[in-house]
Amino acid sequence: MKQLPENAIKCLDKGFVRLVDSMGGDDAIVQAARVSYGQGTSKISQDRGLIRYLMRHRHTTPFEMVEFKFHCKMPIFVARQWVRHRTANINEYSLRYSEARDEFYYPDPEHIQFQSAFNKQGRMGEVPADLKQKVQNYFKEISEKSFGIYLELNEAGVARELARAILPVNLYTEWYWKNDLHNLLHFIGLRSDSHAQYEIRVFSDAMADSVKAVAPFAWEAYQDYVVKGMRFSRIEQSLLEKQLPSRVVDDILEDIAYQITATLHYNKHREDSDLYQLYQKQGGSNSEEDFRLKWNSGEIMIGNVRELREFKLKLESLNN
Amino acid sequence: MKQLPENAIKCLDKGFVRLVDSMGGDDAIVQAARVSYGQGTSKISQDRGLIRYLMRHRHTTPFEMVEFKFHCKMPIFVARQWVRHRTANINEYSLRYSEARDEFYYPDPEHIQFQSAFNKQGRMGEVPADLKQKVQNYFKEISEKSFGIYLELNEAGVARELARAILPVNLYTEWYWKNDLHNLLHFIGLRSDSHAQYEIRVFSDAMADSVKAVAPFAWEAYQDYVVKGMRFSRIEQSLLEKQLPSRVVDDILEDIAYQITATLHYNKHREDSDLYQLYQKQGGSNSEEDFRLKWNSGEIMIGNVRELREFKLKLESLNN
Amino acid sequence: MKQLPENAIKCLDKGFVRLVDSMGGDDAIVQAARVSYGQGTSKISQDRGLIRYLMRHRHTTPFEMVEFKFHCKMPIFVARQWVRHRTANINEYSLRYSEARDEFYYPDPEHIQFQSAFNKQGRMGEVPADLKQKVQNYFKEISEKSFGIYLELNEAGVARELARAILPVNLYTEWYWKNDLHNLLHFIGLRSDSHAQYEIRVFSDAMADSVKAVAPFAWEAYQDYVVKGMRFSRIEQSLLEKQLPSRVVDDILEDIAYQITATLHYNKHREDSDLYQLYQKQGGSNSEEDFRLKWNSGEIMIGNVRELREFKLKLESLNN
Amino acid sequence: MKQLPENAIKCLDKGFVRLVDSMGGDDAIVQAARVSYGQGTSKISQDRGLIRYLMRHRHTTPFEMVEFKFHCKMPIFVARQWVRHRTANINEYSLRYSEARDEFYYPDPEHIQFQSAFNKQGRMGEVPADLKQKVQNYFKEISEKSFGIYLELNEAGVARELARAILPVNLYTEWYWKNDLHNLLHFIGLRSDSHAQYEIRVFSDAMADSVKAVAPFAWEAYQDYVVKGMRFSRIEQSLLEKQLPSRVVDDILEDIAYQITATLHYNKHREDSDLYQLYQKQGGSNSEEDFRLKWNSGEIMIGNVRELREFKLKLESLNN
Repeated sequence: MKQLPENAIKCLDKGFVRLVDSMGGDDAIVQAARVSYGQGTSKISQDRGLIRYLMRHRHTTPFEMVEFKFHCKMPIFVARQWVRHRTANINEYSLRYSEARDEFYYPDPEHIQFQSAFNKQGRMGEVPADLKQKVQNYFKEISEKSFGIYLELNEAGVARELARAILPVNLYTEWYWKNDLHNLLHFIGLRSDSHAQYEIRVFSDAMADSVKAVAPFAWEAYQDYVVKGMRFSRIEQSLLEKQLPSRVVDDILEDIAYQITATLHYNKHREDSDLYQLYQKQGGSNSEEDFRLKWNSGEIMIGNVRELREFKLKLESLNN
Repeated sequence: MKQLPENAIKCLDKGFVRLVDSMGGDDAIVQAARVSYGQGTSKISQDRGLIRYLMRHRHTTPFEMVEFKFHCKMPIFVARQWVRHRTANINEYSLRYSEARDEFYYPDPEHIQFQSAFNKQGRMGEVPADLKQKVQNYFKEISEKSFGIYLELNEAGVARELARAILPVNLYTEWYWKNDLHNLLHFIGLRSDSHAQYEIRVFSDAMADSVKAVAPFAWEAYQDYVVKGMRFSRIEQSLLEKQLPSRVVDDILEDIAYQITATLHYNKHREDSDLYQLYQKQGGSNSEEDFRLKWNSGEIMIGNVRELREFKLKLESLNN
Repeated sequence: MKQLPENAIKCLDKGFVRLVDSMGGDDAIVQAARVSYGQGTSKISQDRGLIRYLMRHRHTTPFEMVEFKFHCKMPIFVARQWVRHRTANINEYSLRYSEARDEFYYPDPEHIQFQSAFNKQGRMGEVPADLKQKVQNYFKEISEKSFGIYLELNEAGVARELARAILPVNLYTEWYWKNDLHNLLHFIGLRSDSHAQYEIRVFSDAMADSVKAVAPFAWEAYQDYVVKGMRFSRIEQSLLEKQLPSRVVDDILEDIAYQITATLHYNKHREDSDLYQLYQKQGGSNSEEDFRLKWNSGEIMIGNVRELREFKLKLESLNN
Repeated sequence: MKQLPENAIKCLDKGFVRLVDSMGGDDAIVQAARVSYGQGTSKISQDRGLIRYLMRHRHTTPFEMVEFKFHCKMPIFVARQWVRHRTANINEYSLRYSEARDEFYYPDPEHIQFQSAFNKQGRMGEVPADLKQKVQNYFKEISEKSFGIYLELNEAGVARELARAILPVNLYTEWYWKNDLHNLLHFIGLRSDSHAQYEIRVFSDAMADSVKAVAPFAWEAYQDYVVKGMRFSRIEQSLLEKQLPSRVVDDILEDIAYQITATLHYNKHREDSDLYQLYQKQGGSNSEEDFRLKWNSGEIMIGNVRELREFKLKLESLNN
């Protein structure tokens, strides 16, 4: 195998992802968002909070202000899935113009698996060693045979654009691929998902490393609100409502009232005597005695006030 | 006001939305999806089920196969929000080429409201009648005055493209606007939302009527999974987990086991003696005696097996 | 080979293009353009003239108002070029979800050619019969061998998404492909060009037939102004200017003056006595005697006045 | 007027364009193109030649690999034209979220002109001083009046999103605008054209300065092949053919043969005795004696061989 380019992350047996260039990061997201909201708001939120707010509320345009350019090398069948993300700009190695190189993807034993019985698009289970060996032999045999024929036709002078038609889709190709952060996150969300094919997931995960390094707050927010988020449909909500006793919802709401109080106190110190009143304003319903008891236990976490209030609204809507 | 074009839905005081043409409907979604999944699957799912499955799992490309073209007339400040949806094709009335017409938006009293205290982008509350009157007077005054000047400059031969620069953004403009169903639903999701500005919501709601008529299953699925869905972030889930007693989750899971059993029985009749076994396979944990009792009560609803199973997985993940 | 779907145009040995649906035609282009230019202009130009005007001046948005949806079947290496046109909506047969079918592209002898010596991306010349036979044998051998292995791995239960990686890019795939007329014309302009690879040109030409049928004026205008147009760069123009004697340019300009006069006369009959004056207004410089001589010869063609005037401007700029 | 941001180029009376960030330049175009053409070709062409080749043959994707981000401030009616370029990413100052600022565009006297009689979209001629004064007074009057009312309604607590509807389209807005070089050049090609409205041309020209600085070769090639290129339609070509005597075309062809010979000689020195043969291979038809005469005159320019050959082909097609 040829040497990896500098700074490239190895993917599969012969592929790689390399961040060639990027423009902007978390700061560029904030900068763009602040144009929309005007000068006056700059002091209100710190960068991280603003980025989380934008992600939570699906304000996607500021994330489009950050741009990434990668150099990638991957098997053709991976490139075929990848290219469906249409907002990217692509320059790919052309087999009409240049000769194919003798580089094919051979799966390692660990990733040779059975067709999933549950998911028509997946794989599962442990394959016996001899079947693994057979798969590897076949990959090698077909790749070498077709490449040999390709070379022979090339030497006989047959047009490259035609001769390449016998090469299998495990042949490696390469390209420059440029996209903005919003669409790159969407790509990673789909292609690093457990339902994506293993061979593209490896590349998606490698690009994710670049995102984490270039725009760490945006990455964190995407994980918290999109990837790790859980969505309940209208039907599922009716089931939840029917079974979720009001008592449970009330307990959570109570917990939120404490958290908001603690957070406000943390951000701007209050007199001890003002705390119970503050807690009541957040919807807390414990008696002052109970409040003191719990407050002094020191077990109350702090969080993001805006997020906590939004969660409160969601829960209350479940109770109606 | 000029007469509305035939089949147009009136929007605001002088605007409208009119479906000019469309290509495909629910059937086109199914047809496109089936190319992806091959011939063999055509019998598995009925159209509605397939469309709901596609929506639930964010398989968006089949929805792009349906196309809508609208003729719309709206104030410029509405057009300015609308145009940000960049996948649409647009042909707009040009004030460089043609003369402006004397048509301005005057808000009706009901929608003249105060600036929202909670939401920097919203309005709220009831405004006193005299302030309402003042707003209406001002709108009329500025519109008439600027249009008068515009006409005067026009008659003096000043270039239209320059003279129009003094017209206010409540002037009506019109355009042809064409988009695919996936992106149209996204538009409606954002612009028919309660946080959208009232004046664009009216147009979005009017287009929603066309979607409902042309692709009713897609519309229903979009409502159930996207609009009315509820999303919990990673942080919110931790709060839920901490407080949601396992007992409650178990109750819901039990309920689901009954629903799946009933649905399978409904779709393909089973012998009475097979029912308890089927229920156990769905994860039901009641004794056979309890099962019979509840089963015979007749209160068990049926649903979509696939959806119920997916909900089960989500709930189980909350219990871990 | 499986039977072609109804109304499909056969492409290559086993592929096809089939127009599934379309929205609008020449009339929709005109309708959209007239919104931009306002009501008043509707009488000025007939449809054909307006469409030609739009194309000549690269007013592309009205052409985006017409939509086409095709069902196509083509080899993977063709699909890989095709998919680079990113404005299209696509639903493709999935080899993760469904089994591959035993259908491969075998080039017919006529299109097996040598690598072009002049164009790194082309083919040329006549290949000896035995080399043609060898190419065909190799295509058949590799296709059958790889498909045999694919079937064997499939039967052994290996995941489809992995087993398919050994199939060559001459395997047929199929998809639904939807695009608007502006972008479809751009596709055809590039892919029906003589520099495009033969195997995609066949499909592009087949889609061109649908365009001709659905929007004949737009098709004609695209041919006249874009495909068959000839573009001279700034450098080439200097060469032209240096060598093109003013006399030649003057001859052409004179010819144009006659053509415009004849056309205006044809559209709206003039008295014989007014003709010479009209001709002079068009920039004609012959004496009245010479004018009469040529006029009565009857050899003057008529054309489109607007186009002729634009050509005149271009030529005059060459003379400066 | 508020102070201009650092490095901003002033546009109109109160607007500006400021290059915030860019990614890549001429080198990034070459780098991306070379991936497509493989390693082996890197020595063939120097960067400038390769960029000119790409532009001449409309290989647009490498130009998409360069990205620009601008901060711009312009009147709303300019923003309305600008926003129609849909590939850009935009974050605009929001009048729902923030208060409007008292900044309106007042045209300077020089650009107050009459409606063009020839071009429905243009302006022309010199307007009398008193009409100019009247226009300026009206702009000022309407802007101040509407802003005064806006402030009054704002202070009365009316929702910002509604009150702003009375502001005229000469109000300044601002945004971050990000686009790739290919689409930016297309923007400049349309908006710096003499047919574009003066007020947007100013901004387009300002962005052109950034392009010239960041990617000078790409800028030059765009000028030579697209902006300053001249396109002849099929119909115009027939007129040219009919009138352009073969003799003239032959003269130009002869000239090209000399230029190619001189260029090849310049790039790689030949023996004097080889020159005539080289000239003949380029299609030259002068006798050796004539050749020597002209050659020694020293008046032969050199150029780009590839371009000269392409021009030859075009001219020959005119002669057929």
